[in-house]
Amino acid sequence: MRANLREHIEKIIPLTDEEFAFICTHFSTKKFKKHQFLIQKGDPVKYCYFVISGLLKLVYTDDSAKEHIVSFAMEDWWESDYYAFFTQTEATMSLECLEDTEVLCFSLDDYKKMCDGLQKMERFFLEKANFGFLGSQRRIISWLTSNSKERYEQLLKQSPSLIQRVPKSLIASYLGISRETLSRLSS
Amino acid sequence: MRANLREHIEKIIPLTDEEFAFICTHFSTKKFKKHQFLIQKGDPVKYCYFVISGLLKLVYTDDSAKEHIVSFAMEDWWESDYYAFFTQTEATMSLECLEDTEVLCFSLDDYKKMCDGLQKMERFFLEKANFGFLGSQRRIISWLTSNSKERYEQLLKQSPSLIQRVPKSLIASYLGISRETLSRLSS
Repeated sequence: MRANLREHIEKIIPLTDEEFAFICTHFSTKKFKKHQFLIQKGDPVKYCYFVISGLLKLVYTDDSAKEHIVSFAMEDWWESDYYAFFTQTEATMSLECLEDTEVLCFSLDDYKKMCDGLQKMERFFLEKANFGFLGSQRRIISWLTSNSKERYEQLLKQSPSLIQRVPKSLIASYLGISRETLSRLSS
Repeated sequence: MRANLREHIEKIIPLTDEEFAFICTHFSTKKFKKHQFLIQKGDPVKYCYFVISGLLKLVYTDDSAKEHIVSFAMEDWWESDYYAFFTQTEATMSLECLEDTEVLCFSLDDYKKMCDGLQKMERFFLEKANFGFLGSQRRIISWLTSNSKERYEQLLKQSPSLIQRVPKSLIASYLGISRETLSRLSS
C-alpha cells in the first residue's frame, strides 16, 4: 500500500529508501466503509488523506440543507477540508465514502515535521499545491466560459472513470446542474 | 518598494537582512502604463508578478472572442498565467493593466534558485499556494451555492476597494453575470 505513496511522490521527486522510511513514520492507515464519514461538518479536522483505494465526496451543505459536491477523490488523490485542516478550525464541509475506502493520512503536526525534516517533502507539497490551484482555476474558467453540456463533456474527457463510478445525481451536483439536465446530456 | 515585499513575506515567515538581500537579487522591477499587457495570449510567460501599486486583470478569451475575467490583482497580490509559467508553455490567458502599475517579478529560473537557496522561501510559496487553492475553492463553492445577487454581495464584502476601482462591466464578467444584471444589483 505504501508502494502507491512512494510511486506517487516519486512522480515529482526521487527518494532514497531512508527518506521514504522517514516519510512513512508520519503516515497512518485507515479503512472506511461505504457511507462512513472521514470528516463531519462542525468537527475538528485532524487529518489530510491520500486515497489508496475507493472513492470520496467532499460536500458543502448550504443554509437550506442542500448538498453541493465540491470535489471527488479517488486512487492517488489527496483530500481534506483543507481550510479547517491548515487553520485547525471546525470543518465547514464533510468528507464521505461513496465506496469502501482505504487511505493513508497525516496530522498537521506530522505535516510540519515532514516539511521541517525533509526539504524534498516541502517541494513535493509545493508542487501539489500549485497544481491543485491550477486545477481549481481551470474549473473556474470552465464555469465562466462553458454551458452545462460543455462542462459535462469536459468532465467525461478528463475523468471517464469518475462518470462510471459516481451516481448521476452527484455528477449533476458537482457540475451545478439539475439531475434532469444531466440525464438529457448523458442519454 | 522592496519594503512592501519584505513586509508581505514576513507576514508568513521572518527573515534576516541577509536572507532578504538574497531574495532581492532574484527580483526585478517593472513599470507599465494603463492598458499595457504584462502577458499576451500565445506568448511565452517569462515572469510571475507581485503588484507594488496598480491593478491588473487576468483574462481568458474564449473561441468566440469573448473575454472572461479570471481574476484581478492589486497591491500585495501575486499574478501570472501560472500554468504557462510553471510549464514554460505559451500563455492561454492575458494579463493587462487597468491602472498604471508597478511590479516586482521573477523568472522560473529565479523561482527555483530562491527555493533551492533558502528553504524559508519554499515555505513561503507553499503557504501562498495553499491559500491560493483555498481561495479558488471558496470561489467554486460560491458558484455552486449562490445566485448572482449573493455572489455580488460576497465580493462587495471581501473586496470593497475592488468594486470602487474596477469598471462595472469587468466586475460582471468576473461574477459570470450580465452587465444589466449587475446594474440592477448594484443600484
